[in-house]
Amino acid sequence: MSKITIRELAKELGIAVSTVSKALRDSHEISSETKAKVLEVATRLNYIPNLYASSLRRQKSRTIAVVIPEVADSFFSIAINGIEEVAREKGYHVLIYLSHESLARETEILNEFKSGRVDGLMISVTSETCSGTHITEAMNSGLPVVFFDRICEDIQAARVITDDFESSYTATRHLLENGCRQPVFLSISSNLSINQKREAGFLKALGEAGIQTDKGRIIQCTGNDEEIAMQILHLLQNPERPDGLIASVEKLVPPVYMACQQTGCRIPEDLRVVGFTNLPAAPILNPALTTVTQPAFEIGKTAAALLFKGIEKAGFDLSKEIQVVRSRLMKRASSGA
Amino acid sequence: MSKITIRELAKELGIAVSTVSKALRDSHEISSETKAKVLEVATRLNYIPNLYASSLRRQKSRTIAVVIPEVADSFFSIAINGIEEVAREKGYHVLIYLSHESLARETEILNEFKSGRVDGLMISVTSETCSGTHITEAMNSGLPVVFFDRICEDIQAARVITDDFESSYTATRHLLENGCRQPVFLSISSNLSINQKREAGFLKALGEAGIQTDKGRIIQCTGNDEEIAMQILHLLQNPERPDGLIASVEKLVPPVYMACQQTGCRIPEDLRVVGFTNLPAAPILNPALTTVTQPAFEIGKTAAALLFKGIEKAGFDLSKEIQVVRSRLMKRASSGA
Repeated sequence: MSKITIRELAKELGIAVSTVSKALRDSHEISSETKAKVLEVATRLNYIPNLYASSLRRQKSRTIAVVIPEVADSFFSIAINGIEEVAREKGYHVLIYLSHESLARETEILNEFKSGRVDGLMISVTSETCSGTHITEAMNSGLPVVFFDRICEDIQAARVITDDFESSYTATRHLLENGCRQPVFLSISSNLSINQKREAGFLKALGEAGIQTDKGRIIQCTGNDEEIAMQILHLLQNPERPDGLIASVEKLVPPVYMACQQTGCRIPEDLRVVGFTNLPAAPILNPALTTVTQPAFEIGKTAAALLFKGIEKAGFDLSKEIQVVRSRLMKRASSGA
Repeated sequence: MSKITIRELAKELGIAVSTVSKALRDSHEISSETKAKVLEVATRLNYIPNLYASSLRRQKSRTIAVVIPEVADSFFSIAINGIEEVAREKGYHVLIYLSHESLARETEILNEFKSGRVDGLMISVTSETCSGTHITEAMNSGLPVVFFDRICEDIQAARVITDDFESSYTATRHLLENGCRQPVFLSISSNLSINQKREAGFLKALGEAGIQTDKGRIIQCTGNDEEIAMQILHLLQNPERPDGLIASVEKLVPPVYMACQQTGCRIPEDLRVVGFTNLPAAPILNPALTTVTQPAFEIGKTAAALLFKGIEKAGFDLSKEIQVVRSRLMKRASSGA
């Protein structure tokens, strides 16, 4: 029995070849009734779809995925704009997935990529992500991966990062030079390599200034927004409250300012404040906030450019690429500058 | 000739049934060499994949798409969190697409959905979107669609909105009650139905107070961030500058505050300010910003719940659903409250 063609199938059905083709591709343009009829005849006549061709069609999704912990943070929203600028030039779509700081959710998202849904992945891991088995598995399936900002130290993969240790060290020295003797560092997770580096930079500057670096200097802020706000309020209500503070992520800034309003603690007179943030409102806060401003747009662009090199250039070993884009300390009123 | 089974195919190839199955599904777990061999034998033996079954498998992507103009806006980032909360309960993934206020890009994104990539769509249109042909086409392909916040008036589709007219009217009355006689309304687009409603609410309050509602009262802020900042600076440098201002979107707030810092224009003494924004930093600005706070999380949740009703409930006519969630005027120092 010779191989039946799509043309013969169409003739048998008395409909156009294009209709048959669309029905076999499960196109929305074709009614389910027609689809059922086409499938019935195709099965009866032993029609074999050209699997090679459809496999070829599927090969490139022209889509890249960005997996980030949250979107309500200026760093990520600006980084996404940098990523999209590069992707647009390349004619690619960008899908944004939110892990909501949950390792389980991040794993679930990455499992989806194994089916070839996307051509490449850019990821900034959750604060729960200690081990990266789910990420190496995706990489082993042939998916080009670039880490940005929040990386997994134990995975050899392309990474675009900023100088977290140095910028935290510089910010802390700035606080000390402005008279702080009891500064604290507000963290949200000690799992994250970027936080570990920021903490290390903070402690190094303290050590050099002969300031005790006991455990109480690093404060883990955990729980939901209300719980974090309460924790910070208690910190500032304490008679032995700090005289300086580094907020390691943007979402810690509003509760610090609010707690100061509530307790009558004056910024910068009683508490000098620096925040790691790309908040556009930083210069118009009361008082204007001194920030470690990360090159968010630049990081997004650089990471995307690297990913496309990995996608397009055969034989290019993406995993060895490391690029560091420097952050800037923007001195404003909140640190007494 | 009887129909050949996958089992016979595996036997002929001397490999496991599961390997054959995976190869036919183009799984990443199988080498291209093996895939080629499987396809070659499948073609030679006239193997017919069970199209019904694979069509069934494809039917539900368990993914919904959210198309928004931008992500660097607290309204959208909070709305996304509301959407994700509902999607998570339903076991669905959420894909976020950014249209960057470009109709061309929005159209391109929507065209992609016709292939059944997602099970439902939530959209807040761009400021360029006057006509919604690209959206009705997607709806006609059977895709459940819910508009949220920024809708297309001329499309009959489910919509979850807030009371833009009323909240703008209330905000304007608040400015007038606090002594404003020359207020202006800063807009970014008169295409958008939400902006038209906010403008109408503003003009109605002015009319009732016997204040001239000439064209100069509504100011269109266009161009990139720098151009908008210059435009606002010029407005406040003008000797006949306004004594009150409504910023109709979040991104207009920082340039207004910055222009005041540069020109020595004091908020609220010289200029009373209200902003439509969900900015968490609103209470800690200098001075604290009076806001029309939209129920962003609630809008996201409500819209998602509606979409899932459309996806899951056969015969449910989504297109007639309209839900209005009310905004709140949060009076703070910037309006002289």
